[in-house]
Parts: sequence; C-alpha cells; structure tokens
Amino acid sequence: MVKPSPMLMIPGPTPVPQEVLSELAYPPMGHRSGAFKDIMLAIQPKLQWLFQTQQPVFTYAASATGAMEAALVNTVNPGQTVLVLACGVFSQRWADIAKRLGIEVIEQAVEYGQPNSLSDLDAILSGPDADRIKAVCLIHNETSTGVINPVEAMARLIRQKTPDALIIIDTVTGLGAAPFDFDGWDIDVAVSGSQKGFMLPPGLAFLAVSQRAMQRHAQVANPGFYFNFTDNAKSVGQGQTPWTSATTLCRGLLKSLELMEDDGLDVLHDRHRLNRQITRAAIQAMGLSFLVTDEAAASPSVTSVLKPDGIEVADLRGILSNEFGLTIAAGQKHLKDGIFRIGHLGAIFPRDVFTAISAIEAVLHRLDYNRAPLGAGITAAQQEWTNACRVAITS
Amino acid sequence: MVKPSPMLMIPGPTPVPQEVLSELAYPPMGHRSGAFKDIMLAIQPKLQWLFQTQQPVFTYAASATGAMEAALVNTVNPGQTVLVLACGVFSQRWADIAKRLGIEVIEQAVEYGQPNSLSDLDAILSGPDADRIKAVCLIHNETSTGVINPVEAMARLIRQKTPDALIIIDTVTGLGAAPFDFDGWDIDVAVSGSQKGFMLPPGLAFLAVSQRAMQRHAQVANPGFYFNFTDNAKSVGQGQTPWTSATTLCRGLLKSLELMEDDGLDVLHDRHRLNRQITRAAIQAMGLSFLVTDEAAASPSVTSVLKPDGIEVADLRGILSNEFGLTIAAGQKHLKDGIFRIGHLGAIFPRDVFTAISAIEAVLHRLDYNRAPLGAGITAAQQEWTNACRVAITS
Repeated sequence: MVKPSPMLMIPGPTPVPQEVLSELAYPPMGHRSGAFKDIMLAIQPKLQWLFQTQQPVFTYAASATGAMEAALVNTVNPGQTVLVLACGVFSQRWADIAKRLGIEVIEQAVEYGQPNSLSDLDAILSGPDADRIKAVCLIHNETSTGVINPVEAMARLIRQKTPDALIIIDTVTGLGAAPFDFDGWDIDVAVSGSQKGFMLPPGLAFLAVSQRAMQRHAQVANPGFYFNFTDNAKSVGQGQTPWTSATTLCRGLLKSLELMEDDGLDVLHDRHRLNRQITRAAIQAMGLSFLVTDEAAASPSVTSVLKPDGIEVADLRGILSNEFGLTIAAGQKHLKDGIFRIGHLGAIFPRDVFTAISAIEAVLHRLDYNRAPLGAGITAAQQEWTNACRVAITS
Repeated sequence: MVKPSPMLMIPGPTPVPQEVLSELAYPPMGHRSGAFKDIMLAIQPKLQWLFQTQQPVFTYAASATGAMEAALVNTVNPGQTVLVLACGVFSQRWADIAKRLGIEVIEQAVEYGQPNSLSDLDAILSGPDADRIKAVCLIHNETSTGVINPVEAMARLIRQKTPDALIIIDTVTGLGAAPFDFDGWDIDVAVSGSQKGFMLPPGLAFLAVSQRAMQRHAQVANPGFYFNFTDNAKSVGQGQTPWTSATTLCRGLLKSLELMEDDGLDVLHDRHRLNRQITRAAIQAMGLSFLVTDEAAASPSVTSVLKPDGIEVADLRGILSNEFGLTIAAGQKHLKDGIFRIGHLGAIFPRDVFTAISAIEAVLHRLDYNRAPLGAGITAAQQEWTNACRVAITS
C-alpha cells in the first residue's frame, strides 16, 4: 500500500535532514581510530558554540535521562539537598532522580502550563532552607506543557541569593530552539539530547559542565562509572569518550552541527519563533485555546492546545496518523487526554506547520468541530507567515 | 582520491550488513508510537533466543560498559563483596566498576592470554571468603587477549559451591559467536553490546536478568535511575523502554536479529569457529606465535598474534590501513605494542579472512619478515577452508 512518508510533529524525536540520515548509514568506524577522533575533535567546538561555552561538553551514548542522572550523581552526595523547580513531567524528573539517588529534595512546583515563578524562587532562596541547597535543578523548555522558562533571570537570582549552589539545567528541548548562554548565564551543568534541536535520532546525550561543577564533583564520594565526569573530562580534549561512542550517531552529529552552524544561532531561533507564531495564530483563529496563555512563556519548540469539547484527542491523533501519516503528541500524565501538542522543533519549517495546521483543521471539522469556519486556521497561518516575511524584507 | 572502502577486522565495532545499514538511515519513529512498540515486541523474543533465556532482556541506549555498571549497581549494595575473575582488560573492568561503586572486590587474575582457572576458582569458593561473596563477575570472551572462558563449567562450579552468589557475565564479544545458554547454565545477569556479534553500530547494550537477580535487586538500597532494573522490567513486556530508546539502532537491531535467526545458532557459531581455524592455520604457517596457546581457550571472535622480532605493530597496522584500507587491532595495556589482534566477529566471513591474511602476509614480507615463504599463510588458510568444506559436504 502506498502511503505518505511518516511526518513527525512531536517534540522529539524530530525529523532528521536527508544529509544527516545518509551519514547514519555509513559503515561504522573504529571508535579508537584517527578518523573517528577527527570527527569528535570537530564536534567539540561546535557543541561549545551551541551551548555558548568555553567549558567542555561531554557526549554520552545514552538518552538525555542518563545525562540528567549524570548531572546529579556526579555533583551531589546522597543526603545533601537540592531545590527542584518543577513545571511539568520532565522538570519533575529531576526530583524523581534525586530521590532515587538518596538526595534530599525541596520541590517547588507550579501548575502545568505555567512557567516557574521568579518571586516564589526568590522567597525560597531568601528563606531558612537556602543555606542547605547544594544545587538548583530547573528546566529551560518543559516539553510536556510547552512552557519556556525565563532561565536567564532565574540563573541570575540563584547566583545572587545562593552563590555556591550549582545551577543544573535541562535544556533538552530548548537548545537550538531558544537562546541559551551557558557561560554568560553562569550555568553549571546543562543537559540536552540528540533527538531534539540536534535533528538526530535518539541515542546521544550532551552535558556541559562548569569548573564549579567539576570542583563539586571532586568532593562526591560515589560518582558512578559510566557517566563519570572525571573520565569524560580526561577524554574529551583528546577527541575520545571513555567508553565506546555511538559512532554512527556521532558522524551524523557532525553533519547536523555543520548545518546548524551554517544557519547561525539567530536564524535557528528565529525559525523556531516563527514556527510558534504561525502555529499560535492558526490555533487562535480556529477558536481553540492554549494550555500556555502567557505569551512570554510559550515554547518555540512545542505548542499545547486544550482539547475542545466533543472531540477526543485519541480520535484527532488517530485520523491524522491514518489519513495523513502525520503524528502529533497527546498530553502526558493528568493532561494525557486533555491537550494535544504540536511539535515544531528541529528540522521543522513553516511549510511543515502549514501542512500540520491544514490537516488538523480538516480533521477537526470532519469530527464536527465548528467553532470557526473551515480554512480560518490555515489562512491565519498564511497571514502570519506573510507578515513575518514582510518584516524580514523591509527590516 | 578513490580508495578501497574501509574494512574493519577489529573485535568491534564490526561490519554492518547492507540490509541493516539501510534500516539505520530510515527517518526516526516516535519512541512511543505503535509502530515502534511493534519493533520492540518483535525484538524481545529474538534477544531471548540469542541469550537462550525465558527471562527478560533489557535494551539500553548505552555502550556495554553502561550495562556492566547496571549489572552491579542494581544487584549489589556498597560494602558487599564480589569475586572478579580477571583475565584481561574487560574482565578487569568488573573490578574497576565495583570499586567505584564502593563494593568490596576479591580479585582472581590470570596472566593475559590465559583463561580463568577452574581449580583456582574452586579453591576460592571452598575457602574462608566464600560466604561473603554476593556475586561472581566473569567474562565469556576476553576481547583484549582473545581468550574464551569455559563459562559452562565455571557457572556449574559457582552454583554448586556458592548457591546464592549471583553469576554475572560479560558476553559482549561472546554472544552470537560462541555457544551461550543463560537459562541452561543458570546465569543471573549477562551483558552484551550492539557493535559486536549483533552486527550493528555501537549505541545499544543488552542485559538479560534472572529472577534471582531481580530478587537481589529488590534488596538494593540505591539502584540508580537510568539503568534501573525495576523500571526496565516494567517496560519490557509492553514493548517499551522507560526512557527514550535509540530508535534507529533498534530498527537496525530487528533486521540484524532476523538475519541471525535465519542462520540459526549453529551456523553462526560454526562460521565464527571456521574464521578462527582459518586464521590460526594461516598464522601458524607464517611462523608467527599466538598469545593464546591453549587451543580450547582460543576465541572464535578475535585472534591475538605475538609481534615478531624486528616488526613494529604500529608499522604493520599503518601500512594495512593506508595501502589496503584494512584495520586490525593493536594490543591493550601492557600488550599494546606486543600483539596484534585480528577480529573475525560478526559479519565477517572466510572471504574476509582470506583478504586479511593475504594483506597481513604481504605487508609483513614488505617489512622484511622472512620466517616463512610468501604465500605460506594464505595457502594454509585456503587449505583449512577446503578441509572444512570437505567435512561439511561429506558429513
């Protein structure tokens, strides 16, 4: 049966450019060969550019959850305390991992759909618990809700109030989509993953680490083996990883980073912002509502839409998949059936957003949704794109 | 510049069949999609077949070192004691990992090139330390030396002498090349990796786990997060992994396992044994010496050859690489410049062994090696293959 090629518009895995896919099918190299070392040495400054850091960035054969565990197990001793700023499933994972490792957790959570609150953070960091907080774990872009946090302001506040606390950030779906400045914001550990803005399949995780974090690491009694910072720090400058790299994914990574560098950070961020603006304009014109109502907190990587009355998310997703070969995401946890999420992260372009909006709008109408006339959504998307072009051309 | 395509004859990464390479370039799927679940559900019984077990086999996005750490961190508490049987770099790693995790290690090591000794094992398991041994860590095939251990007999002895000790095995370069029977030998944890007999790029690690090991896991205070047995056991039956899978590698894995299943275990093992016999016949005819002199301990995955006087391993490897696009391995640790290793693991066939032997023999002669006439090695290889065919045809 001839079918349209699968089209992924979820917040990861994201589509992989053809140039990168071709690299993935190249026969594996020896992981200790000179040719592979050259690839790893070429990757390192590009990763540093993407994280905006002079510090080393480790490449793990793992998914990002592994790098999150790495961040904690390497820098915090069991029995010590961390503050976790939760705003969804993935930021909450910091607390889950910490507890599993025997680390004490102070948790500050907001309702799903909200960004973390600077004033609440200020209150905790000014309160009686501040002294024992060894690290603050937060998220840049919360994939489960489509919220982007004001990380720059959060980091400034943390550094000001608790100068010795490590700032540990999940930027799994933020990096490459939104500005991130590891050195400029004085971050200590930042984690990302290959199947997101990196436009690669899953299987690689990245971790940038400050000197402050390396010093803290030296005081950790039991920092584990596979993800160990000392071993990785020793290897990274030599174009090596301590254990066997996922060589074919690394080969793809080099190509991906080259493509990203060709664009430059501004172009990457502008494209993601445009994806978001087109999506939000269309959703609004269709009479649908956002989970994230605060425009400043609306993610450039993923847009969450509240399920309209009378429509089941499973029906919408099922028809999109069966009829159009298009995958969008449902919600997670208690939002599972309450929202759908449109990913516009990585190698997603306005053309793809047009496709998704047209299809979603058509399916909703087929399901007797009638809060706006058919075509209103895609027309608003076209208009938004036209406006953005006009600005770009005249500015 | 037109060059011969790279030819890897190291004990991993191994060559990847074209059918598998093509799968790796397929666009990523959603890791929670039904289509990906179907792949994982299809993989599970095939992994169980390869490990010869009814128990679950976990698939980690990691290299095998990660799965080795998983084996220990999930089943042994810090302060408890394990016995490590070391016979080379990789079996020694069990001790390195255990110590890093705060586990007490009793180490029984043999000289590189020897298999572990059953009588020494018997002595330890009959001695005063036996009672406190919670697990025995050993290796099936020691990649750094080219030794295969008598695992069946070792496991029987361990189970007989210390019935409660877990038997934890690294079969990273054993599985698929030599007989392995997880259930039949009453193994508790076995670890392997994708870039070996699995004929895939690096990036996936596999771990089979017995009920006894799961029970022990339940008593472990701090079993970690990313590699956690409980989470993986919960997911595996549902065609899921707890965290994001390396989806493209899993897609390749299914194809690889299908190819292996088409052959059947006997054919796979016979081919590796034949590779070894052809290699050893040629090496011997060339007047070279083996690191592993005990024929019964000679690995079907990799053959280690002592460097002849007057030849540098680096020169041999360099010319093979530059002139023939052929990569063989040097030694590791103190054997680095003392041996070279010919990998014949995974998608390596007698044709490839002929190629390697011809090239190695020619390069040695170009380097003025003259302990046997040019052609003696490859002729012996041809003869060995002919003999094996004759047996196969008449039997």
